[in-house]
Order: sequence, then C-alpha cells, then structure tokens
Amino acid sequence: MWSTLHSKLRFSSGKRLNSTFRASEIVIDLTNNPKTMPALDETLIFGKKTTDHLFSVDWDAKRGWHTPQITPYQPLVLDPTSSCFHYGTECFEGMKAYRTATGKVLLFRPEMNVRRLRKSAAALALPDFDGEEFLQCIRKFVDIDRRWVPNKKGYSMYIRPTMIGTHQQLGVTKPGKAKLFIVNALVGPYFPTGFKPVALYCDEARVRAWPGGVGDKKVGGNYGPGIAYTDEINKLGYQQLLWLVNENVTEVGTMNFFVLWKNKEGETELITAPLDSTILEGVTRDSILALTKEWSEFKVSERSFTIHELTEAIEQGRVIEAFGAGTACIVCPVKKIFYKGKDYEIPMKLGNSGLLTKRLLDHVLSIQYGEIQHPWSYQVDY
Amino acid sequence: MWSTLHSKLRFSSGKRLNSTFRASEIVIDLTNNPKTMPALDETLIFGKKTTDHLFSVDWDAKRGWHTPQITPYQPLVLDPTSSCFHYGTECFEGMKAYRTATGKVLLFRPEMNVRRLRKSAAALALPDFDGEEFLQCIRKFVDIDRRWVPNKKGYSMYIRPTMIGTHQQLGVTKPGKAKLFIVNALVGPYFPTGFKPVALYCDEARVRAWPGGVGDKKVGGNYGPGIAYTDEINKLGYQQLLWLVNENVTEVGTMNFFVLWKNKEGETELITAPLDSTILEGVTRDSILALTKEWSEFKVSERSFTIHELTEAIEQGRVIEAFGAGTACIVCPVKKIFYKGKDYEIPMKLGNSGLLTKRLLDHVLSIQYGEIQHPWSYQVDY
Repeated sequence: MWSTLHSKLRFSSGKRLNSTFRASEIVIDLTNNPKTMPALDETLIFGKKTTDHLFSVDWDAKRGWHTPQITPYQPLVLDPTSSCFHYGTECFEGMKAYRTATGKVLLFRPEMNVRRLRKSAAALALPDFDGEEFLQCIRKFVDIDRRWVPNKKGYSMYIRPTMIGTHQQLGVTKPGKAKLFIVNALVGPYFPTGFKPVALYCDEARVRAWPGGVGDKKVGGNYGPGIAYTDEINKLGYQQLLWLVNENVTEVGTMNFFVLWKNKEGETELITAPLDSTILEGVTRDSILALTKEWSEFKVSERSFTIHELTEAIEQGRVIEAFGAGTACIVCPVKKIFYKGKDYEIPMKLGNSGLLTKRLLDHVLSIQYGEIQHPWSYQVDY
Repeated sequence: MWSTLHSKLRFSSGKRLNSTFRASEIVIDLTNNPKTMPALDETLIFGKKTTDHLFSVDWDAKRGWHTPQITPYQPLVLDPTSSCFHYGTECFEGMKAYRTATGKVLLFRPEMNVRRLRKSAAALALPDFDGEEFLQCIRKFVDIDRRWVPNKKGYSMYIRPTMIGTHQQLGVTKPGKAKLFIVNALVGPYFPTGFKPVALYCDEARVRAWPGGVGDKKVGGNYGPGIAYTDEINKLGYQQLLWLVNENVTEVGTMNFFVLWKNKEGETELITAPLDSTILEGVTRDSILALTKEWSEFKVSERSFTIHELTEAIEQGRVIEAFGAGTACIVCPVKKIFYKGKDYEIPMKLGNSGLLTKRLLDHVLSIQYGEIQHPWSYQVDY
C-alpha cells in the first residue's frame, strides 16, 4: 500500500505534491449580491447569462493542486504572458443540470465529461486530477448555484468546466501553472420555437481534424478556425460545415453526425463515423448509439462512410433523415448538404425533422428531466 | 475618393466604426515603478522578464477599434467566458528589437510580422487593422521601453504582439470583442554558451498541420498539442519533433527546417519545404532563402522532400548539414534524426554546427545589430 502511494506522490522541498484537489476541501465564499434571474423565454441567448458563483482551483508544478474555491462570479486576472493566451493550452467541457418535476437537480452522464476533460488536458500537457473528486466538486458547485437550475422543461443550467495554462513565460514550454475553473450559465432550449433544420456546406478545402492530430479532444484550437470557416459559409446561406477527413464524413459544425438510411444492402441503418481519433467522443453520440441499439429496431453502425456514398444515397432516395448531435441541441435536423456545386435535399417526415430525430430528442429530454428513471441520471441533491 | 472611403467604413447608430486604430491616438500612461533590470547573463530565461509597459487596444463589433493605450505592465482582467479561454481565438507574433553599437534601436523586417498577424487574425475571424498604423504603434511602444533593449550583442528585447477574442459568450460564435496587446521581454542569446545542436524525433503518428488546416498561421491551437508531444519525446532523449505532412518533411519543433545536401543530381542544394499552407511563413526562413540566393554559391530550393529522401541522403553521406530556423534562435543545428527505430547522424563540420549554419547566424546577427547596413533594418528612433 505504501509503495503504491509513494510511487504516486512526488516530493519537493519536503512538501507533498498534491496530485489531486479534493471536494471536501473546497473553500466557499458565497455572493452577497445575487444576480437577478433573467426571464425564461426566447430572449435568453446561449451562454450569456452566467450565474452567481465561480469554481476555481490552481495548479503549479512545485506544489501540485491548491485548495479549490467557490467564490462570487468574478473575472480572471492573468499575466499577459500566460500560455493560454498564446499557445492554445486550453480545454473544456459542456454539460447541463436539469430540474425534475419534483424539484430535484440531475446531471446527465457527468462522469463521461470528466473523463474526456482529463484526456483533453493530457493532450496539452496540462495536469491530471482525480475524476471522482472533480465530479464531487461539480456536484457541490451545482448545488450552490441550484436556484439557477430552471423549473421549466427545455431550460437548464449549462456547466462549463475549463482548464487553461497560466504559466507566465513566452517560451513554448510545458505549462508549469494551470487553472481549472467552472462557469455556470442559464440556458434555454436550443430551438425555442421548434426545430430549425440546418443547411450544411461540405468542402474538402476546409479541414477541422486529421489523423495524428487532436480532433478527438475538446481543446480550444479545434474551434477557432472552424468559427472563421463557418462565418464564410454563413454568407452563402448555409449554417454549418460538414467536415470530411480525406473523403470520409466525420462531424457537422461542432456536433457529431448521424444518417438514417437504407444502405446498399437494403437494410435500415443508423450510421455515424467511428472513434478513429478524428472525431469528438460525444456524450450525446454515445447515448444515441446506446439507446438505438437497445431499441433493436434497425441496424446501428459506427463505421466510416464517404461523402460520395452519402450524396449517392440521397440521390437514390435512400436517406431517411440526418441530424447532428451534441449537448447544446441534443439533436439538430439537417435539411440539405451542399457539395461540389450541388444541393442535396434530405427528407424530413415531420416537416422540420425526421421521425427518429424527434423521437431521440423527446427520449433524451425525458431522461434528462427525470421523467424516465435511468442509470444515466446523476442526482446532485445531497 | 468618397465612394472608396464609404465602402470601407460601416455606420452603426450614426457612429463611425473604426476599421483601424491609429498610432497618433495612443494614450500613454508611464509607470511610476520601473522594474529593476535583470543581469545580462546566462541566468536570463527566455520570455520571463517582461518590461515596464503594456500596449493594448480593444475592439468590438459595434464601435470597431477603441483608443490604443500604453500603460504600466499589468495583468489582463477578463470574464471567464471570454472566447480566448475556450475556442483558441488567439494569434501572436514574435520579433526582436536590437541595440546597435551607436545606441540606435533596430527591428528586423517588422512589416512581415505585421502582415502575418493580420493573416492569422483572419483565420480566426478576429478583426483586421491597418498594418502601417500597427507598425507605428510597435515603434512607439518599443521606443517607450527602449531602456530594455540591451547594449550587448546577442541580447535583445523580444516583442510579442498578441490578439485574443474577448467575446463573453459560451456559444461557439464569431468574436464580437477582441483585444490586441503587446508584451516586451528582455531575452538573451538562444545559445548562451555556443550552439547546442538538437536531436530530432520523427513520427508520422504525431501531426502538427495538414492541408486545409491553419498550420501556416501563427495561432495558439498549433502549439498546445506540440508541447505535449514534445514532452513525450523529451523523455526519450530527443529535443524536438521533425514534423511530416503525409511523408513530406515540413517543420522542426516550432521552427522551419533546412537541409544542405548534395542532391541526387550531384548539385549542392539548400532545401526547405514550400509554402503550401502546412508550414509557417517564417521571417527567418524567408531571410535565409533571400540571402543564400543572393550569394549564388549553391542551388536554393523551396520544394517538397520526403523523410525517405532525407534518410537515404544521410545514409549515402550526401547531407552536409541541417538546421531549424526561427526568430528565437535564428538557426539551430540538427545533429541527428530518429525515424522508424533508427538514429540518422548528421555531420557538423564545426563540431557543434555546420559551416553554413554558423555563417548564417553571424550574417543575420550582423544585420540585426546594424553592423551591416541593410534594407531589412527598421529604425525605431524618431
């Protein structure tokens, strides 16, 4: 036991290096000026209305993790040479807290977000921590901000754990300092007035991820260039990019991508790209795969498929529906795909979405809001 | 004239949008507490010793550019939802100010850095500005910090222009706010005790850039993953990664890469990868190409070459020398390359570098420190 412990800890000038922070050690300083709660309506902009508090914990290479803190919401004060401003040493997660009809607060598979954040941090040489301890920190922090978890279906409190390098040195070097923080924000339904299907633009000249890179990690550098590319295609009347790796269809905008089609063998198949290191390991993606496999109503496949297979299937009338999947929207119907000068229209049985898209939305929401008892629900309440 | 002007400006609630800031409008607040100058010796760590002042100018989508400011050096105070912490909306430049023997302060081809920063910003949907105005801001700022430009050859004041997205919203969206700032730092020679040649590790499983990405831009997201990869190979006894795109040799660590060899046709040739969008448009790279072309002593080529061509040439004794090139080191000798289980040793005529490597270092330094009159020198002094 001791030898195991000893190998896990390092010593520096006689002081123990803290290889993790602990939820039991959080120092809490509650706000004296609680913010006014915004109206729960369509005016709520995603990720603008932050809550009353901020969770943060610092790390440095000498001491390890410091004491975690929950403070009144406040700005970050950072030296301009901090590595997060220069070298993209930053990673994040997105998850939500939901209010059940009986007033309980639930998270949805939060352990998956915690696991992915640790992977993303490793990809940037940022420090690791104990996942269960961080989950308990999230739980505590959500509980403290629980008045912000709205009592209205479709609304929720978005949780954004983020880790940044705060090392103060302009040399490109392994971060010797870091900060892990969590921001909470009140958010409404992604589609407040019902699904708004998106038009996709597919162009192999704009590439998000590639084998050997970090496209499967939730790191800042994967997003900035996509914002600029998306801005260009917005001007052409398309909302999101359909990303390819070589000719394989991978993601759409910042979401995973699913197609329900009759495949060449005539089987009804729900297909999405495999976890080959070029796509994000989406929690919603994983949930959709698990649910549809459980239903056993059609074939469910994680395998590569090309843009040519997809456009051919659309032309042959074999595509039943297509949608993006992510935490913000759960599912987002796709109405058409532009590729090499041509728009390929995708059917939508319900007018603004396909049947499966709507069914998945309703089913996942039912789990998230506790209408269905499910092992994926994680209760925040103590 | 008016129509040109009109097309360049946009109007918002009757107020002009400032499409650029202007050097003549800088508001200057000098420090009352000048820092103590560190010793000019080997203890100086690259990019740690920042100077007395900070240049900054904010931008927002409604007003455009605000008034630029030079203030005492201070931390940045930013909302935790600022996009630079989450989506890698950050780009930067690196350049240096040199003191001549007669006390003048010179920059080296600064217009190239300004041009590249504007390209990097565009790749992240960050705002543009007038390049000449920014160059005049840099000049003013360097002049104010001029006591930090050391009177000792090899030492210089490093200048780090940086632009970050400061948009406060967790949605992945085009930055509506940004901050452009400049940090200056006292730096010593990259190799204080003479060249330390580096050993390279080449592994196609670790990829820095790819066609259709932003590997040719100086954006934060290109660096973080490289730090983690480099940390892994450091543990194996290698200092830098030799990056490939497919099988083509592209960059080394954060530098461009040059090989002087006898090519298959028996010609002496200096070769470096072409500007094909996967490598950084290095200022030092461009300068080395221009100088060696002017010398006309050997063939100078910008073209793709594979790792197999390179290792074959080393095995056949055709490689004369190899080096990285960048602003920090100017040139950095390469002593060996690990590839597929084998170390390939590269000759070094001078023991710790090749003849051309040393000659280029001396020549570029002579221009930078004003020992040679050269059109690349840009005088800061008013």
